[in-house]
Amino acid sequence: MHTDLVAALDIGGTKIAGALVDDQGRILVRAQRATPAKEDGETVMGAVEEVLGELTASPLWGSASALGIGSAGPVDASAGTVSPVNVPGWRDYPLVRRVREATGGLPVELIGDGVAITAAEHWQGAARGHDNALCMVVSTGVGGGLVLGGRLHPGPTGNAGHIGHISVDIDGDPCACGSRGCVERIASGPNIARRAVENGWRPGPDGDTSAAAVASAARAGDPVAVASFERAAQALAAGIAATATLVEIDIAVIGGGVGKAGDVLFTPLRKALTEYATLSFVQRLVVTPAQMGTDAGLVGAAAAALAKRADVAAV
Amino acid sequence: MHTDLVAALDIGGTKIAGALVDDQGRILVRAQRATPAKEDGETVMGAVEEVLGELTASPLWGSASALGIGSAGPVDASAGTVSPVNVPGWRDYPLVRRVREATGGLPVELIGDGVAITAAEHWQGAARGHDNALCMVVSTGVGGGLVLGGRLHPGPTGNAGHIGHISVDIDGDPCACGSRGCVERIASGPNIARRAVENGWRPGPDGDTSAAAVASAARAGDPVAVASFERAAQALAAGIAATATLVEIDIAVIGGGVGKAGDVLFTPLRKALTEYATLSFVQRLVVTPAQMGTDAGLVGAAAAALAKRADVAAV
Repeated sequence: MHTDLVAALDIGGTKIAGALVDDQGRILVRAQRATPAKEDGETVMGAVEEVLGELTASPLWGSASALGIGSAGPVDASAGTVSPVNVPGWRDYPLVRRVREATGGLPVELIGDGVAITAAEHWQGAARGHDNALCMVVSTGVGGGLVLGGRLHPGPTGNAGHIGHISVDIDGDPCACGSRGCVERIASGPNIARRAVENGWRPGPDGDTSAAAVASAARAGDPVAVASFERAAQALAAGIAATATLVEIDIAVIGGGVGKAGDVLFTPLRKALTEYATLSFVQRLVVTPAQMGTDAGLVGAAAAALAKRADVAAV
Repeated sequence: MHTDLVAALDIGGTKIAGALVDDQGRILVRAQRATPAKEDGETVMGAVEEVLGELTASPLWGSASALGIGSAGPVDASAGTVSPVNVPGWRDYPLVRRVREATGGLPVELIGDGVAITAAEHWQGAARGHDNALCMVVSTGVGGGLVLGGRLHPGPTGNAGHIGHISVDIDGDPCACGSRGCVERIASGPNIARRAVENGWRPGPDGDTSAAAVASAARAGDPVAVASFERAAQALAAGIAATATLVEIDIAVIGGGVGKAGDVLFTPLRKALTEYATLSFVQRLVVTPAQMGTDAGLVGAAAAALAKRADVAAV
């Protein structure tokens, strides 16, 4: 008999995943749908309701006492709404209310997907035991979240830790967000690949121009590929150092596809960190790869739900 | 009869100020010495002890139940030590222990001076009523502190909010801290003045090449002086936007000599903020001048002492 379950939703531009999770972070029931990202808002919500329908049909559903949502951002936890960049049908969409209605009034906690990943790494992964941590996803985009003073710091709207869109090059290239020289504009996978191609790197016979292909070339010693990863590492280091200087973190965890590049990324990143993290109180900062796998979003949403339930119980 | 007093110390490179402060932030007793900044550590401590001697000699001393220290940084609140850049005789100096010994064992709270200013602005000044705020001092250097979730966020070592040394120009000029393109390297008073002179601005007959003189010239329409303030505003905006993007603040308070420049600074700063603070959850960010005067450091140290006393009482 499970009496300590929570429900979790991980909502992205590609898939909508749901689960029932126990208080050890184990996933007991799963459901998933492709995100109809190009459709209207109600169609997207229909996919969420199908996922929730599978969960509520489970005999374990009766043990679920709260629900956590990690959603592609931006989100607005204070309003209970989401506006995922890649789901144009949802703009200020009242996701929390709709999920609450679909689940008979469970307490619902909404956080951004970077915050969810952070909750997962802090609970079960590379940031476990660290009271002050930055967790990042470096992939198609660059996202993140913060643990401060031993607790997740989602911020009032659930978006805190959005390191991809801090500018580390104020005169730099325009970013899709409207700013310039953002960490994401320099360090995301597509930008690593773009820069390599612009500087003369050419893919192999398979024509693969992904960041993973650039990483392979860098591992084989291609100097243009190496330089593109070094530039990404420089931007990531400046962003991580800025975060440490602003809020005093002692570990930065890097996940996502680019985070899997290994030494091609981490060696220049650790070197660049010594150049940008200079003040005494940030010099002990450690950078390490993420440990959570593809379930990180669900596990993190579950962690947020457990924290929400504890808060509700304490009132 | 005052029963709710705390003692406060504000330790800088120029002066060491002390006070007894009531729970409304009123300063009832004051003492001050010049900082013998070039002398050995014990001589500096002697000046602190003279200040404390005046405070303990007051008939009100018996009502003081905790002591707060705001010190030039870096500090290490976890170790109780300070290493102020401008006081070379103090390196990892055990200030908390020495102050506790000199005051008969009062509970002592140590924070950096930027954090102290922040505590003061949050308690009595421009950040009052804001649960998430950045307060900055833009002067010879650039410092700051954070209020998050309604509480001061000093961080584990008491240095959080150190916005002057985040890099906003990763390929920029070397900074004294060892990094490049730091906010301070672009926006401090001396750097505003240096840039104006380098670009051809010349002082008046009085030969004044301070940032205040550049501000006067900018007010009179000198384009080089205007441009130097615009560049400082750009760096400050990027730093403030980065902070908001990372931890979700809704107000940035700017004090210090440069902060007094008025529209010459704030007009380009507000414009630049719209360029760097682009994500939905940071667009409502407000920038405003500081309200606290020269006693901000003392009042902030007192605020930290009051918080410390409340924590001790709660145990």
